[in-house]
Amino acid sequence: MSKITFMGAGSTVFAKNVLGDVMLTEALQGFELALYDINEERLRDSERLLNSMRQSLGSQCTVKAYTDRKAALKGAKYVINAIQVGGYDPCTITDFEIPKKYGLRQTIADTLGIGGVFRNLRTIPVMLDFAKDMQEVCPDAWFFNYTNPMAVLTNVMNTVGGIKTVGLCHSVQTCVSGLFDALGMDQDGLKTKIAGINHMAWLLEVSRDGVDLYPEIKRRAAEKQKETHHDMVRYELMQRFGYYVTESSEHSAEYHPYFIKKNYPELIERFNIPLDEYPRRCIEQIKGWSDMREKLFASQHIEHVRSLEYASYMLEAMETNKPYKIGGNVMNTGLITNLPSEACVEVPCLVDASGITPTYVGDLPPQLAALNRTNINTQLLTIEAAVTGKKEHIYHAAMLDPHTAAELSMDDIVAMCDDLIEAHGNWLPAYK
Amino acid sequence: MSKITFMGAGSTVFAKNVLGDVMLTEALQGFELALYDINEERLRDSERLLNSMRQSLGSQCTVKAYTDRKAALKGAKYVINAIQVGGYDPCTITDFEIPKKYGLRQTIADTLGIGGVFRNLRTIPVMLDFAKDMQEVCPDAWFFNYTNPMAVLTNVMNTVGGIKTVGLCHSVQTCVSGLFDALGMDQDGLKTKIAGINHMAWLLEVSRDGVDLYPEIKRRAAEKQKETHHDMVRYELMQRFGYYVTESSEHSAEYHPYFIKKNYPELIERFNIPLDEYPRRCIEQIKGWSDMREKLFASQHIEHVRSLEYASYMLEAMETNKPYKIGGNVMNTGLITNLPSEACVEVPCLVDASGITPTYVGDLPPQLAALNRTNINTQLLTIEAAVTGKKEHIYHAAMLDPHTAAELSMDDIVAMCDDLIEAHGNWLPAYK
Amino acid sequence: MSKITFMGAGSTVFAKNVLGDVMLTEALQGFELALYDINEERLRDSERLLNSMRQSLGSQCTVKAYTDRKAALKGAKYVINAIQVGGYDPCTITDFEIPKKYGLRQTIADTLGIGGVFRNLRTIPVMLDFAKDMQEVCPDAWFFNYTNPMAVLTNVMNTVGGIKTVGLCHSVQTCVSGLFDALGMDQDGLKTKIAGINHMAWLLEVSRDGVDLYPEIKRRAAEKQKETHHDMVRYELMQRFGYYVTESSEHSAEYHPYFIKKNYPELIERFNIPLDEYPRRCIEQIKGWSDMREKLFASQHIEHVRSLEYASYMLEAMETNKPYKIGGNVMNTGLITNLPSEACVEVPCLVDASGITPTYVGDLPPQLAALNRTNINTQLLTIEAAVTGKKEHIYHAAMLDPHTAAELSMDDIVAMCDDLIEAHGNWLPAYK
Amino acid sequence: MSKITFMGAGSTVFAKNVLGDVMLTEALQGFELALYDINEERLRDSERLLNSMRQSLGSQCTVKAYTDRKAALKGAKYVINAIQVGGYDPCTITDFEIPKKYGLRQTIADTLGIGGVFRNLRTIPVMLDFAKDMQEVCPDAWFFNYTNPMAVLTNVMNTVGGIKTVGLCHSVQTCVSGLFDALGMDQDGLKTKIAGINHMAWLLEVSRDGVDLYPEIKRRAAEKQKETHHDMVRYELMQRFGYYVTESSEHSAEYHPYFIKKNYPELIERFNIPLDEYPRRCIEQIKGWSDMREKLFASQHIEHVRSLEYASYMLEAMETNKPYKIGGNVMNTGLITNLPSEACVEVPCLVDASGITPTYVGDLPPQLAALNRTNINTQLLTIEAAVTGKKEHIYHAAMLDPHTAAELSMDDIVAMCDDLIEAHGNWLPAYK
Repeated sequence: MSKITFMGAGSTVFAKNVLGDVMLTEALQGFELALYDINEERLRDSERLLNSMRQSLGSQCTVKAYTDRKAALKGAKYVINAIQVGGYDPCTITDFEIPKKYGLRQTIADTLGIGGVFRNLRTIPVMLDFAKDMQEVCPDAWFFNYTNPMAVLTNVMNTVGGIKTVGLCHSVQTCVSGLFDALGMDQDGLKTKIAGINHMAWLLEVSRDGVDLYPEIKRRAAEKQKETHHDMVRYELMQRFGYYVTESSEHSAEYHPYFIKKNYPELIERFNIPLDEYPRRCIEQIKGWSDMREKLFASQHIEHVRSLEYASYMLEAMETNKPYKIGGNVMNTGLITNLPSEACVEVPCLVDASGITPTYVGDLPPQLAALNRTNINTQLLTIEAAVTGKKEHIYHAAMLDPHTAAELSMDDIVAMCDDLIEAHGNWLPAYK
Repeated sequence: MSKITFMGAGSTVFAKNVLGDVMLTEALQGFELALYDINEERLRDSERLLNSMRQSLGSQCTVKAYTDRKAALKGAKYVINAIQVGGYDPCTITDFEIPKKYGLRQTIADTLGIGGVFRNLRTIPVMLDFAKDMQEVCPDAWFFNYTNPMAVLTNVMNTVGGIKTVGLCHSVQTCVSGLFDALGMDQDGLKTKIAGINHMAWLLEVSRDGVDLYPEIKRRAAEKQKETHHDMVRYELMQRFGYYVTESSEHSAEYHPYFIKKNYPELIERFNIPLDEYPRRCIEQIKGWSDMREKLFASQHIEHVRSLEYASYMLEAMETNKPYKIGGNVMNTGLITNLPSEACVEVPCLVDASGITPTYVGDLPPQLAALNRTNINTQLLTIEAAVTGKKEHIYHAAMLDPHTAAELSMDDIVAMCDDLIEAHGNWLPAYK
Repeated sequence: MSKITFMGAGSTVFAKNVLGDVMLTEALQGFELALYDINEERLRDSERLLNSMRQSLGSQCTVKAYTDRKAALKGAKYVINAIQVGGYDPCTITDFEIPKKYGLRQTIADTLGIGGVFRNLRTIPVMLDFAKDMQEVCPDAWFFNYTNPMAVLTNVMNTVGGIKTVGLCHSVQTCVSGLFDALGMDQDGLKTKIAGINHMAWLLEVSRDGVDLYPEIKRRAAEKQKETHHDMVRYELMQRFGYYVTESSEHSAEYHPYFIKKNYPELIERFNIPLDEYPRRCIEQIKGWSDMREKLFASQHIEHVRSLEYASYMLEAMETNKPYKIGGNVMNTGLITNLPSEACVEVPCLVDASGITPTYVGDLPPQLAALNRTNINTQLLTIEAAVTGKKEHIYHAAMLDPHTAAELSMDDIVAMCDDLIEAHGNWLPAYK
Repeated sequence: MSKITFMGAGSTVFAKNVLGDVMLTEALQGFELALYDINEERLRDSERLLNSMRQSLGSQCTVKAYTDRKAALKGAKYVINAIQVGGYDPCTITDFEIPKKYGLRQTIADTLGIGGVFRNLRTIPVMLDFAKDMQEVCPDAWFFNYTNPMAVLTNVMNTVGGIKTVGLCHSVQTCVSGLFDALGMDQDGLKTKIAGINHMAWLLEVSRDGVDLYPEIKRRAAEKQKETHHDMVRYELMQRFGYYVTESSEHSAEYHPYFIKKNYPELIERFNIPLDEYPRRCIEQIKGWSDMREKLFASQHIEHVRSLEYASYMLEAMETNKPYKIGGNVMNTGLITNLPSEACVEVPCLVDASGITPTYVGDLPPQLAALNRTNINTQLLTIEAAVTGKKEHIYHAAMLDPHTAAELSMDDIVAMCDDLIEAHGNWLPAYK
């Protein structure tokens, strides 16, 4: 029997979506859906809910919860990963509050920046433990990583962990439709091409019948920038660098040195930048979950309509050999020729029975490659820190972060890193 | 209006298949199908036949024949190329008869070997003329090359010609089904991977549910080798080098120094090698065509069922953005990491609205890369000859051909090349 | 007769040093030393002085001044370039004063940063004119570039200009001796290795008898940092990133976002950073020259002792085939494996009759590669601007500069670029 | 105290030359010269002789013989390797006699071909044992490999062994002087460039004052080919492929399929090819040594004049940091851009205190790259066999050898390999 293992299955809503999709997919009937989480209470919630849904949907899949990680992974053909290490409380709070003392403000802190660096440092050891288990009990399984920071974790699983890993993110999928909806443009018959790095991939081409639509997009976007809206940073980046980026304004604001600047406090309002956005979302999500939980468990029927989430379509393509195309995160084996080969990149991938095969992109426009490289710098140094266990590389990662370096002196960056290391305590391994 | 131009449309049967497929494809209705050939009689035949078929099928495409090449290409969105330069008589006859005087025997002579070298030398200038016209009148068109020698011509069109070209061959498509049919094995649920160079691509993986099927394949193949059959060379290569190759035994026999050997005349019978096979086929084909022509023009209804030929599925994928996967010939932009980057390779490609995007393969097993390199040597030197116009590189190409070098001395190789250059006369440009 | 052409020969002191060395080199006797400058008065000064020196030294070289550029270059075997475009007044003044209005302070402005970008933009067209002339009258000559910004100009001459160019800078030569002198350490028997990019190359290895000397260097440097001295930025970079850099503190201060920060005005004093240093030096140099000029022309004998300047030793090695090793700036043909291949890098090169042959370096430590990449970003975008003539790439270059991006908003960066373009007037070509 | 260890010191004559050079080199006084050989009798001979020579020359080096390998290597700064595994009797005899039964004739059999393959297979395990010892007792030592087959053994020591290794061969050094002597041409002021693979490196450039000397060389060589001489194969290769090769005719004859051909027996005489040359030389050398031994031990004074052998000049450059240039064998880290990166290549290297640093070459002319690739094929497959222990890769190596493949059928190649494996017995590890 084939088996799909879901790591972090206590994320009930996400597990419900992804595994609900699986239950609705003809080619995946008969699979065991193995659930694993370190939080047993939430694991049992998910098990209960998924079993209800299975019955409601009449699916031939089976659902089984595991408290033993290796048992959960044993014999898996696919592993879906959606863990979070350290949670909102205490780790996310730490990631935001300590930098704030140094005057360094953030919005999401799950990708790059000082928050992204520490989120990586506490997640990498856990993921490498998964990899070690997998080498023993399911070395050939495909690992679908949904956990952020995407680029670094996918990189580490592939290179250090030695596990066939693809990183999956919604930002590629929704990039074009979001833009066209916002600008009131017709989406029929579009030809598009997206590549770069996760959360900073670029809409390299958007045309219809051979006609480049960027001039019209930019004209409408310029008009829209005259009023306040929720994607002002992203539109500004497009006007300045020529291409639309996959990640939202609240994320993008902290990937660059241009928006959150002590010297220019007015930019926060001008670009409508929601500082401390992620902690707010966490609090709401926690509150929202307890409401939803009650409702879900009260209902007899758990309905589900197959979503647009990549996972079930990929699994279907891999089982049926009917090709499917995704924007996936993979190692840069010469795919984007002007980004470092040690980087993890987000490129079109072909999915079918042969697995997930990345396609060749070539050179990015030079300004886009340059922007990507500023972020890759911090990614690679974070990996260096995690792999060598040397504290100095944590400082390097932080000092190379464009936003951190713009705002703080080297002394303050180092002091802030030391404070963060201390505050995280056992959430981090010992650094020398 | 969108336009598909067919170069060499006088190949009526092939044009009928490919363009019949197009006529039956929903997404391609309304396209102009532009026919071009230097042989006006055959061009008119094709025009008449395709128009009959169009009516029989009720297609909304239009058919138009051109005698002016640039007019045929003007504004084309896709160009399909199926020309043959020099024909059976005189050029193929020359390619076989002169080497035979030196004791060098061939089977097909359309890929590598001395025949392949000269077929390239007379075709490259014609193809580069196409490229020059296309640069003027349809620089963004995709060029689907069906003309052999595939690897060299596709290479030249991409690099020297500067035209977006993919080379298409049936050998990848039929490789696995042919093998499994012959061995009486079940083809359901196969996972396969094929990559290499045209006519020498390798079935790198063939499995079902994670189980490698090669041991069973090799066991059955060994059994079959005990009797005479038509694929003995290919089975022998698989037993010796571990992997099945895409091209048939009659082709493969002349790509290596192992089969057609003056020192071992018994190998011809032992491996059932049909020397001079291609001229025989040409004669039959010419005869067959005149019979078929009569029948076709006599019939009221020209029926057509959509074939498995790649072209219409690719065009459909490019127009509808529904992904399709092919084995295509493209430049080796780091795709197969242990073959030269100047080579044209045959790898899985993703076809959709973004065009034809090759996927990453990585290293071939070292013995397969080595065999491919022996053939790439001659390919690259043939291109060098055509691009520089230097006769010495023709000699180099021939001297690096594994079969030619095994059979003849350097003096004989050079003399044979000189004879061939003289015999081809104006079919070749002047060499210095 | 063999010929060495000196472009920018009006830089009398530098021309005297380099060509004085040539006159003292046995293997270079008999060469014509061709002088060229657009300032005829200074050209004549140099001619007069070099002729005096030639007689004093009894050299068999000849000296000839040219006002026609193509005549100066005609038949040259070597071309030495030491031009400056736009001079202190007006261009350097502009490069410093306009950014100052935006609150952006600089120290040298001849490499990177906003001043470096515009210095490149006005110099590239002049250099490409040289390249065009050379293609006509001395296409095989070696071009020794001494003009800054070194990395970009050497890159452009090699790639766009198609001229065999090596970039030469004193910073590699003096790096180790300067450090060891300052720290009172013995320089005998050192083994050292330096590589990176110009003005940001790294002392990757410094050892004696297999013993790494960095711990002792860092201990002494830490001690020295307790008092004020002239290399405080460089020592700080070494403590933070682990390696000593080739360029001085006054240069290095503006290559990073860490030192000149409006938010941390105290860093200027703490690291003893001489803002506006280069304009001060220019004024002194201009004053110094008129004093020196008088003295030189008054003296009967112009003495010269062969200096340590690379040029004459390289010419000697190229003429005699006795190998000589330099740190040279060359295209990154896979030499430093974790820097972009489009970049110009500074690596050990072997000089002999075969020319200037770069050696393989491999990966830099990741934090050093990351720092280099932040500077390469601006270099490549500056080249993009110069080659395409598109103003947007000037903005990109400035926005990717780590120091500029840290200090200014995007609006201010763009406005500042516009002001600089206007102020430079005809010193720049028209941008669209 | 510094130490140079000589592996295979029982090769008394070679040890005397290389270590005599060392004794005469100022910068190497005080070094311990550690001798190691598995043949204790010959080891003692060398010890006695070198001690005599040391006294005669008044050298400050010390000489010490070791019978324990690890003790010999312990603390070495440099290791010089000149071993031979299996000797003339039995292994070389086997390498020649068994192929002869199959009608496959050889001349030297120390590089490629069936003899080269088996010479590699018995030497690689011994060399990897050295590497293992060195990892323990002198991991930073430089390994100067003089043992053939050069390309494969140097490759394996660098990649599998993890030891800094350079391969040294006389063929580069003597290439130009030998050619010019033979043709009566003046050698003053030559500019030359040599690169390729060991024993098949190419004289890419030979000029004087910018004038290409190849036309004159080829004119004289053509004249010389009219009579019988000892370099006829090499001259023929130059006329056919355009460039002179570093290795002698007796070697080159067996690297290609063009010269030793059953179908063309007359070529042996025409190109004056000395079949079975190496066994003859071995017998003479063994005889010669016993004469020489007697004489040497009878004499009071052992004189030595510093030879042109690379080793002492390299050691001097590494100790004094005075640059020296060699043609060395190193891994192809992007140095020759159209040869596989897994190959070991022979390129100009800079030797100084930084070690042995290879220089960048770029593309070879395509016909030369093609010829090199045919030989690299067999090299890489031989390494594959040794590393995996799989017999099939031995067959692959032999089947890809151009000369073997031209002469024999696949059945005969496999049977011959099996015979050789059996005959070598314990000289080879077990293959599966």
